[in-house]
Amino acid sequence: MTQWTLDKIQKLDAEDIFAAKRDEFFLPEGLIYLDGNSLGALPRAVAKRLQEVTEKEWGGSLIAGWNVHSWIDLPSRVGDMLAGLIGADPGEVVLAESTSINLFKALTAALQAGPKRGTILTEEGNFPTDLYVLDAIARHSGGAVKIKRVAAAALEENLTDEVAILCLTHSNFKTSRKHNMAALTKAAKEVGALTVWDLSHSAGAMPVDLNGCGVDYAVGCGYKYLNSGPGGPGYIFVAKRHQDKLDPVLAGWMGHIRPFDFSGDYEPADGILRQLTGTPDVMGAAALEAALGVFDNVDMAALYRKAQALGDLFLDLVLESCPELELGCPRNADDRGSQVTLKHAHGYAIIQAVIAKGLVGDFRSPDVLRFGFAPLYNSYTDVWNAAAILAEVMDERVWETPDFQARKKVT
Amino acid sequence: MTQWTLDKIQKLDAEDIFAAKRDEFFLPEGLIYLDGNSLGALPRAVAKRLQEVTEKEWGGSLIAGWNVHSWIDLPSRVGDMLAGLIGADPGEVVLAESTSINLFKALTAALQAGPKRGTILTEEGNFPTDLYVLDAIARHSGGAVKIKRVAAAALEENLTDEVAILCLTHSNFKTSRKHNMAALTKAAKEVGALTVWDLSHSAGAMPVDLNGCGVDYAVGCGYKYLNSGPGGPGYIFVAKRHQDKLDPVLAGWMGHIRPFDFSGDYEPADGILRQLTGTPDVMGAAALEAALGVFDNVDMAALYRKAQALGDLFLDLVLESCPELELGCPRNADDRGSQVTLKHAHGYAIIQAVIAKGLVGDFRSPDVLRFGFAPLYNSYTDVWNAAAILAEVMDERVWETPDFQARKKVT
Repeated sequence: MTQWTLDKIQKLDAEDIFAAKRDEFFLPEGLIYLDGNSLGALPRAVAKRLQEVTEKEWGGSLIAGWNVHSWIDLPSRVGDMLAGLIGADPGEVVLAESTSINLFKALTAALQAGPKRGTILTEEGNFPTDLYVLDAIARHSGGAVKIKRVAAAALEENLTDEVAILCLTHSNFKTSRKHNMAALTKAAKEVGALTVWDLSHSAGAMPVDLNGCGVDYAVGCGYKYLNSGPGGPGYIFVAKRHQDKLDPVLAGWMGHIRPFDFSGDYEPADGILRQLTGTPDVMGAAALEAALGVFDNVDMAALYRKAQALGDLFLDLVLESCPELELGCPRNADDRGSQVTLKHAHGYAIIQAVIAKGLVGDFRSPDVLRFGFAPLYNSYTDVWNAAAILAEVMDERVWETPDFQARKKVT
Repeated sequence: MTQWTLDKIQKLDAEDIFAAKRDEFFLPEGLIYLDGNSLGALPRAVAKRLQEVTEKEWGGSLIAGWNVHSWIDLPSRVGDMLAGLIGADPGEVVLAESTSINLFKALTAALQAGPKRGTILTEEGNFPTDLYVLDAIARHSGGAVKIKRVAAAALEENLTDEVAILCLTHSNFKTSRKHNMAALTKAAKEVGALTVWDLSHSAGAMPVDLNGCGVDYAVGCGYKYLNSGPGGPGYIFVAKRHQDKLDPVLAGWMGHIRPFDFSGDYEPADGILRQLTGTPDVMGAAALEAALGVFDNVDMAALYRKAQALGDLFLDLVLESCPELELGCPRNADDRGSQVTLKHAHGYAIIQAVIAKGLVGDFRSPDVLRFGFAPLYNSYTDVWNAAAILAEVMDERVWETPDFQARKKVT
């Protein structure tokens, strides 16, 4: 029997070192938002900054904004801020395009820099876009590249000397299972393979130590735990040792060593700037810059401990009160990202019903219910109430109600 | 001798059917902005819309915004709006990434769809990013693709049966020279080559008739004459006949036929949606949507006529009063885009000096002065005053002044 009481919960909130951070976000009244793993909440600083960039900088300075407001430096300036959150050095990260495009860049770079072997190893169940990017590279390689997908547990044994690249997402989008980045990167190195890590579900949610682990390339998005807004720019990390060897497959004028010479001949920029292609997305980069300000002085280890505690609390409460829900993520918090996963054949109906009651989680086909914990704006009381709402919905067996059955027919 | 007088100029403004459009833009008091060819001015509707998307939609609806505010449809919905401006049909245009990335997609698609030949023909002096994208494709083709750059005047004679793709920018960023899209596309077809057009310097500035010309692929940006803000998303056009044959080199989850199935296996979407890769940039797409609203009921032929008239007026005034400035664009307005180009060895100093006096144009190395005309917010009086400022600066011979010489040493 769980020993949790509302008193204990409220005491945790009272002692929470991140409690004041919640006021830095705009959160709709009465909503319990456990979906920051899909789209982070709006930091008040971002709303303010976007208005400023639009009206004052673009509206007021027009083309001069590129210089007087240093728009031109945004990809690397915000990249350097981000570097601090993921264990990279300044000059190793830039903002650019989306995770998908950055992953393509990282993989085509790694294929140049790595050993001349044909296999890229990845996880069965990796995020779809990662698998699609990988498969497209293989399809267009004229047979030179082969993608090998194996279960998470079989990764190490499949790290053979046929593997050129190990390409993984740090924390799985469905199961939340967290890979041991240090161990897998080391194992890859031992067979001479390079690593490409997708941090979309881990950056901003837990400590990430790319250089400490010896990672070669990494990518990720800004709109989940980093709270930069729907579909803003992603980022790419290239370890210093690989930066200048690269001949980018995706070249563009912002990756030129002197873009404002408008030379007809491509001479790649030194360092990480070589990863840039088109004109930077100023709005999106400024949003991420302001969003990262919220992480100032945040101890990522403490933040992750709170995420783990929130997840454990949720599972303690839910698994006891809702025996029909199956655990879909590791029970041990050290093996998880910042989300927990439950499974139920009627998962879609359950998520619709909890949303109607003011608890936002999400559903992933065919039977996955996801609840993400963002320690900067989620409280222990949120979790207590979320568990209560979920229990209520399970008690009501919403998927059997005429309302839901009727709705189901329509959609 | 020019017959222009301020009276005549003011009469043109009084009769201008677009005069009221100026109020739809935020323009700093006292500034003459002739750089909309580089970064369009801020439409008031965009400022309002960005605030709404940020605070009401993202802040208020969070993850539900993808459905309740139809964010998920933005790339194709705004693509359809844009289609109307460039002579494309609904379902032939989507927003995505930057011009550079879209150009890579278009070229790799055309290489699949076109004849099995090795040459891509382009113009010497095309925009650098276009040349870099082309050259990178050639470098990574294992010798299969060769880029042939020739002068604009030599394009037709170089359209031989070795050419797989003709890749051009509609209006040149330096010389403003406008290609005859209909004639060149027809000539390409006659040798069995496909065409890829970059509309960055023409969409929103003049009538463009992609389907009327039989164009195969096109790309462009939103931040010049379309006024969507610094570095927002670009777009790609793929003619219907080519859409479903394509196996994208850049694949991603938003280009899947059922992205929300989160299937591990890529099954490309039908039609233009196959061009999507990562999560759409909601802010940038919403900005472009609002910016395109300014074009409602705008007759593009009339708009281009005004652009030509503004350019002709500027050249009439400047070429007479500033004999040291050399014409760097066609004198015949039908051969130009929406900008005029002048040349002077001290172009950099001249542009700095006119900016200091409230006239914004821009400089392109080594000797090019560019002045762009955006008929929706530039008036004939703007042009009259701009010519006066330029004449003043030329009379002062700013590049010989101690001030400029001193500044030059510092930079």
